[in-house]
Amino acid sequence: MKTVVWQSLSADQQNAVLERPAISDGANITSIVRGVLEQVQQNGDEALKALTAKFDKVESASIRVSDKEIEAASLRLSDKMKQALQQAHKNISAFHKAQKAQPLKVETQPGVVCELVTRAINKVGLYIPGGSAPLPSTVLMLGVPSQIAGCRKVVLCSPPPIADEILYVAKLCNIDEVYNVGGAQAIAAMAYGTETVSKVDKIFGPGNAFVTEAKRQVSNDFRGAAIDMPAGPSEVLVIADETADADFVAADLLSQAEHGPDSQVVLLTPSPMIADQVADAVQRQLKLLSRSNIAEKALGSSVIVVTESLTECIAISNSYGPEHLIVQTKNPRELLPLLDNAGSIFLGHWSPESVGDYASGTNHVLPTYGYTRTYSSLGLADFSKRMTVQELSKEGLQGLADTVVTMAEAEGLDAHKRAVTIRIDKLNQQG
Amino acid sequence: MKTVVWQSLSADQQNAVLERPAISDGANITSIVRGVLEQVQQNGDEALKALTAKFDKVESASIRVSDKEIEAASLRLSDKMKQALQQAHKNISAFHKAQKAQPLKVETQPGVVCELVTRAINKVGLYIPGGSAPLPSTVLMLGVPSQIAGCRKVVLCSPPPIADEILYVAKLCNIDEVYNVGGAQAIAAMAYGTETVSKVDKIFGPGNAFVTEAKRQVSNDFRGAAIDMPAGPSEVLVIADETADADFVAADLLSQAEHGPDSQVVLLTPSPMIADQVADAVQRQLKLLSRSNIAEKALGSSVIVVTESLTECIAISNSYGPEHLIVQTKNPRELLPLLDNAGSIFLGHWSPESVGDYASGTNHVLPTYGYTRTYSSLGLADFSKRMTVQELSKEGLQGLADTVVTMAEAEGLDAHKRAVTIRIDKLNQQG
Ligand SMILES: [Zn+2]
Ligand SMILES: [Zn+2]
Repeated sequence: MKTVVWQSLSADQQNAVLERPAISDGANITSIVRGVLEQVQQNGDEALKALTAKFDKVESASIRVSDKEIEAASLRLSDKMKQALQQAHKNISAFHKAQKAQPLKVETQPGVVCELVTRAINKVGLYIPGGSAPLPSTVLMLGVPSQIAGCRKVVLCSPPPIADEILYVAKLCNIDEVYNVGGAQAIAAMAYGTETVSKVDKIFGPGNAFVTEAKRQVSNDFRGAAIDMPAGPSEVLVIADETADADFVAADLLSQAEHGPDSQVVLLTPSPMIADQVADAVQRQLKLLSRSNIAEKALGSSVIVVTESLTECIAISNSYGPEHLIVQTKNPRELLPLLDNAGSIFLGHWSPESVGDYASGTNHVLPTYGYTRTYSSLGLADFSKRMTVQELSKEGLQGLADTVVTMAEAEGLDAHKRAVTIRIDKLNQQG
Repeated sequence: MKTVVWQSLSADQQNAVLERPAISDGANITSIVRGVLEQVQQNGDEALKALTAKFDKVESASIRVSDKEIEAASLRLSDKMKQALQQAHKNISAFHKAQKAQPLKVETQPGVVCELVTRAINKVGLYIPGGSAPLPSTVLMLGVPSQIAGCRKVVLCSPPPIADEILYVAKLCNIDEVYNVGGAQAIAAMAYGTETVSKVDKIFGPGNAFVTEAKRQVSNDFRGAAIDMPAGPSEVLVIADETADADFVAADLLSQAEHGPDSQVVLLTPSPMIADQVADAVQRQLKLLSRSNIAEKALGSSVIVVTESLTECIAISNSYGPEHLIVQTKNPRELLPLLDNAGSIFLGHWSPESVGDYASGTNHVLPTYGYTRTYSSLGLADFSKRMTVQELSKEGLQGLADTVVTMAEAEGLDAHKRAVTIRIDKLNQQG
């Protein structure tokens, strides 16, 4: 990792140090994905089978995973694995249950009652990527809130063969339907429906460039589906002072770096000593990792920044807006009120990012790539929508009539005014 | 308005009756808007001045509206108008203040503390359309929640000349900066910033096809800005039984119809008598309206549906998912638990849509065009974002270590496992 001293840089250099790499979405991906969406809309299940054979090299799998297969997966897993997944499920459930919105009712003026009502999104689709290792944790992060929100139908797509851990968690979360479909074709199937796959209202979950582009395209089509949030490479920013343990900091930086060669890894510290120690520790620990080649690539674009003060670290972090923000300082909780624009914040020496990735209870689906300025950590709210309700008594309407009439006149909306006066006239006649 | 009997229609005919018209976004608008965005990014203020001269035929206006001009606008308004706007401001404030999120802290297992922290989005931009009549109500609906959420900078753009009512409400809501800029160029200015206009993180507000397309384009650019929600034509659906007053129902249908020729207006009723009476009343009242030509066009694609029961009305409404849902039945509150997929619900005979448009307290910025299935009524949450926080004690990490290690092993993420074990090893050494 390269080390820079913040105050020695020009403003332009400072911007360059923390600039995120452009995501090359490429017209190529756009048109390939457009083709896949069209194929699935036109040919339904048949297209899914053809695309699965082509991209996943799997010919025989049925589209729907049967309950029997899900049962069998559970029997193959070790007790230790099942206990770990249950423990994570329990903690994630506790944190997301606490997010249940309370009904809200306000009498804004006499006889005028306004309410905010929260309802589950009816049908949701969860996408779980395939790849060399299964991602049961992502099933938990999407499945638990959909379960707690009370979504009426929850479907899950993942490229075949689907790992036992994923099927086990799908059952833990009462997911209604599991499909052997991956890639852009899975997003198409959930957004538009096929003979077998249920159409959903909103699609959640991470994926490769094709999945991301498919999510973007279906969310721009009103006949498609809404999506959770924009995607981007994963990131960590660590703020450490001289009380930090350099080995811990290095381990946290590396656990971000191993996610992928495009991972962004930043350390901010006012201590040149910690900067040196962490740089050394990263080199030492890197050699011990099975995914060291991936982590090494990510480290190539990573940086250690030596600042003048913790205050400066906070300002830089708030401006960068990291997905994960780890604070290893003497009094991390004192800094919390000053921290902004982060997906998830890890306070203190005993809170590595990996606990949040898996099992502490917080959600690991987080805004990244600077979207922390406006987007939230995934939570119960994302599986729900808020409707307002209002109910006026006769007296309530009488008390508000002049205000509404005056404003409707200013806006030149005659019928809006008449909807009030026709009622007031009737009340006066009854009077 | 045409009347149909639901049970006499085939499934295809039923779908066709409530199908929304396709929005023709046209490649033309896409490329014009792309050009405007590029111009503003390249030439900043100079581009804004040129585009304002071209589209708004206003040459002389300065880009920023001065405090002096805002003061002067207030002096020109009648006391009656100011009182109405203040009353609306008060009610909208009361309802949105009640939406403030409470801090949330859960100890999911001993020593593992998870929190949900809500923070205001720092900088927001509000777009207020111009046109024949000013829209101070929209300034209230965007300005009040930005004020209550605590956004640090709130800017407002509207095509010049900006009406006194808008400037007055901007001051009521403590909006920081008001700009004489409209159209796609206003969205560009707020998304990317110019010498004069501050760049913002998120843009709110309605607009014409150019504004809508500009919002779409900047929200698809990570250097741009987030937006509030997808746009679409405004809609009302009324559910009425035989206790409804046909004049009231007709007035409500017409107040939706006058919004624009593309407004969607639907009445569902199990009472053929009410269907007839409302159809008559609509024709009678239509003649009295100043905007009768607009309302008449909207009514051309509107429909009265006679159903078999109130239960069927509810099912049709939930499937259609209207922006505004008015319920004029004997016991409207009894139906509330069954109603879903609506932006805002108006209960009973004394709750016309126009009270919600202006002054009851609820927000009039609502999802439409079927987006009620997944999007929410605009509220305080849209001006905020939620971050998670976690803090583990040594004991907390010890209690969670096995679970995290087991899951990290399953996912093949070595460094994630090591970030835990390196800490546990150190604790054991200290032991
Ligand atoms: Zn991670
Ligand atoms: Zn209206």
